[in-house]
Amino acid sequence: MAPDIEEIARRRGFFFRSSEIYGGMSGFYDYGPLGTLMKRKWEGLWKGFFLGLDENFYEIETADIMPEPVFVASGHVQSFVDPVVKCRKCGFAERADHILEDVLEEKFEGLSPQQLDEIIKKHNLKCPKCGGTLHEVGILNMMFPINVGVDKPAKAYLRPETAQGVYVNFPRAFEVMRKKLPLGMAIIGKAYRNEISPRNLLIRMREFTQAELQIFFNPKKIVKHSKFGEVKDYPLRIYSEEKKIRFTQEMPCSLVVEDQNLPEFYVYHMAKIQQFYLDILKIDPKKFRFRELSEEERAFYNKYHWDVELELSDGFREVGGIHYRTDHDLAGHQKVSKQDMSVFADGEKFVPHVLELSFGVDRNVFALMELSLKKDGERTIFSFPRLVSPYDVAVFPLVSKDKLPERSRKVFEMLKKNFVVFYDESGSIGRRYARQDEAGTPFCVTVDHQTLDDNTVTVRDRDTTKQARIAVDELAEKIAGMFSL
Amino acid sequence: MAPDIEEIARRRGFFFRSSEIYGGMSGFYDYGPLGTLMKRKWEGLWKGFFLGLDENFYEIETADIMPEPVFVASGHVQSFVDPVVKCRKCGFAERADHILEDVLEEKFEGLSPQQLDEIIKKHNLKCPKCGGTLHEVGILNMMFPINVGVDKPAKAYLRPETAQGVYVNFPRAFEVMRKKLPLGMAIIGKAYRNEISPRNLLIRMREFTQAELQIFFNPKKIVKHSKFGEVKDYPLRIYSEEKKIRFTQEMPCSLVVEDQNLPEFYVYHMAKIQQFYLDILKIDPKKFRFRELSEEERAFYNKYHWDVELELSDGFREVGGIHYRTDHDLAGHQKVSKQDMSVFADGEKFVPHVLELSFGVDRNVFALMELSLKKDGERTIFSFPRLVSPYDVAVFPLVSKDKLPERSRKVFEMLKKNFVVFYDESGSIGRRYARQDEAGTPFCVTVDHQTLDDNTVTVRDRDTTKQARIAVDELAEKIAGMFSL
Repeated sequence: MAPDIEEIARRRGFFFRSSEIYGGMSGFYDYGPLGTLMKRKWEGLWKGFFLGLDENFYEIETADIMPEPVFVASGHVQSFVDPVVKCRKCGFAERADHILEDVLEEKFEGLSPQQLDEIIKKHNLKCPKCGGTLHEVGILNMMFPINVGVDKPAKAYLRPETAQGVYVNFPRAFEVMRKKLPLGMAIIGKAYRNEISPRNLLIRMREFTQAELQIFFNPKKIVKHSKFGEVKDYPLRIYSEEKKIRFTQEMPCSLVVEDQNLPEFYVYHMAKIQQFYLDILKIDPKKFRFRELSEEERAFYNKYHWDVELELSDGFREVGGIHYRTDHDLAGHQKVSKQDMSVFADGEKFVPHVLELSFGVDRNVFALMELSLKKDGERTIFSFPRLVSPYDVAVFPLVSKDKLPERSRKVFEMLKKNFVVFYDESGSIGRRYARQDEAGTPFCVTVDHQTLDDNTVTVRDRDTTKQARIAVDELAEKIAGMFSL
Repeated sequence: MAPDIEEIARRRGFFFRSSEIYGGMSGFYDYGPLGTLMKRKWEGLWKGFFLGLDENFYEIETADIMPEPVFVASGHVQSFVDPVVKCRKCGFAERADHILEDVLEEKFEGLSPQQLDEIIKKHNLKCPKCGGTLHEVGILNMMFPINVGVDKPAKAYLRPETAQGVYVNFPRAFEVMRKKLPLGMAIIGKAYRNEISPRNLLIRMREFTQAELQIFFNPKKIVKHSKFGEVKDYPLRIYSEEKKIRFTQEMPCSLVVEDQNLPEFYVYHMAKIQQFYLDILKIDPKKFRFRELSEEERAFYNKYHWDVELELSDGFREVGGIHYRTDHDLAGHQKVSKQDMSVFADGEKFVPHVLELSFGVDRNVFALMELSLKKDGERTIFSFPRLVSPYDVAVFPLVSKDKLPERSRKVFEMLKKNFVVFYDESGSIGRRYARQDEAGTPFCVTVDHQTLDDNTVTVRDRDTTKQARIAVDELAEKIAGMFSL
């Protein structure tokens, strides 16, 4: 974790502990004005890019609270559990695999409670808080239960992933829209997990925003994708301990299909995800990779599972994933709900399979902040990619007199039509530039006395700090041009 | 309720019962593709309009789950209760005031359990389900409790209104932004209430979306608003049984200030709300009114409370409200959290007061659907205001041959840059028009054989069904022009 990021995030109103006047609760964060602007921009870019992949992809919005049978069918009631160990002396509770990781500095994700117990005994581990003896490893369901209604309350849960909202609606959506596969449905919304040990700011939260696209398709067609030709030479950045690829390699998509034994339909979407990160979000390619999950790490129903990882200050971190969930979910819902989830398409009847593109919005916003934070002497700069900076432009009068504020407001009003603009006239011009550097605003427009003469303003570039004089009449167009670079 | 609306909403994928393959739960609805597009448009218009009122107004995003002390301070733990009555025989539970309303056809909101009990006894009311005797009226808190964490679980609730998310963040936001009043903070997000009897589709839900703007200001300045001059002659549509205004009257804002004894700061925002409904959403003025709530109806902390009401098929319905909450919330949080909520502004130290502009997004979407649903012989049309229709334009090839689909796709791709566009080539052209009428799409563009000759297309207007030939080169501009009418 970059050491300053929490402090700057709080001070500038990107994010901070939720309900902080009450001390907050672990794993809950609120977004202030700057963080909210940035999150909305990320969400807008995500929607534009991924829903734009196919004219049969749509956004939907479903309830956060869902009845218990949904999660019986999905397997969450039985399997969405963490191995937890409690201290006999002080009552401290923690994930058993995390205690092991902290002490033994190895990864223990995916082991059974029994296996974890054996390792704890073998190394004679004690409570990290008080040194007390530990109970045996138990399991704990991570969903938040909710009782709905009064009469005979119905058992329900806050959804632990947005995905189930899409799956239960599949039959209706298939009927309503084109009765055509592939059909894609996306939700950008909250998910809730009662994590035992939330950590690392926005990386592991108890309430968080997911952006997930579920693509339903005919499993027989997974080996081909009609647009695969467009990406066949595109170099995918992949890493897989499983496959002994221990350094990130760039491998053309066509080779990934052949060598990694992955189907075109899967690899095409990997390429699109990578393009989103490199071309839209302008992530340095060296900081991006797909990592294949080992069999222990991945959910049993995921036939293929590669995570999208970005390299932050403490190593590569998962910010998304691409999951081939097969018919696990629809078949599960078919069994429990007794509703037919099959479709008639391509001349046959079958239960569609699902490819899930899943992203943690908070993690992505956080990763962009970490990757963009720069120090330059006294200057603190968020050198955000231009399309995700909270504000596009700031407008200042050089001084708060001589009619410069009035003139600045006109420029502000004009730019507001096309950009997200911040107006500021308080403090010295140097201080205002510094404030916008910390907010990550790419361009600052200053109205000065020369403006009154020749109707030009200065435009300062955040990254170079260079200023150029531009005519007000051409300002909107010139700035738009700089955004499209 | 318009009788067909639920059926059409389900069939066309606007909204339907959540988790419907499991029978759903009362008070929970999901939005399909069309409903989601429409909701997003409404939210976008709301944000653009209300955040545009002042450069010191911002959007923030806060957690849905908040710790108990928040709701001790706000009064929800103690007072956010419904009077509930249960049948001794069959266990059926219902709001006591609703049982009375159904039988006696009067309004009983705001009465105490004791008062409701007396009326029940006086009229010797029985269980509406089985005729059994009723228990005494009890009270039931409507918040959903949540236990957070494992070690020593913290008591928390799903927020019953977005407002508290803003209030607890006020000191930070004031510090972070301009340290200037008025300061506005908006949240568009979910709120959750365990209603005893959710009803009327999207009108009374257990999980719903609010769009709320909290404006913090100096209470001494409530009598003036710097832009009041702009609205002083604007005729407000008001209705108040309290004030014996028993038919909706149009009254210029300046007169509302004088006669109704409402401060300028309040009335200015009433005018802006009405302009949002009439000018942006194009609601027929006759269907719009502000209704003053009686003292029994309004929360004790609301000094002024007028609801925004739209006239639907079963009468005027609340879709929003404007609440002068005084310092109730900030003072409450100051007391419980022991954090200073006061500010130094205008040369003095004080706890700001709050004006809340509150809207139910689902209710608004639903109201627009109800107000727009038309039958014309066999035709079913949603004549949505243009800015909120799910799709702006649909593009069809007249027939699926002769290269018309290829040409149509080019038109589709071109229009996609500026509009939300639906492409359709299945079924007869008449059937495709009918489908778009039901989706409320204002314009249908058809590519036919003449297009191949002279590069013109037909544009059909949903409301008049008239068609005009327009050159493809001018299409985007012409359609944009029609949207700005």
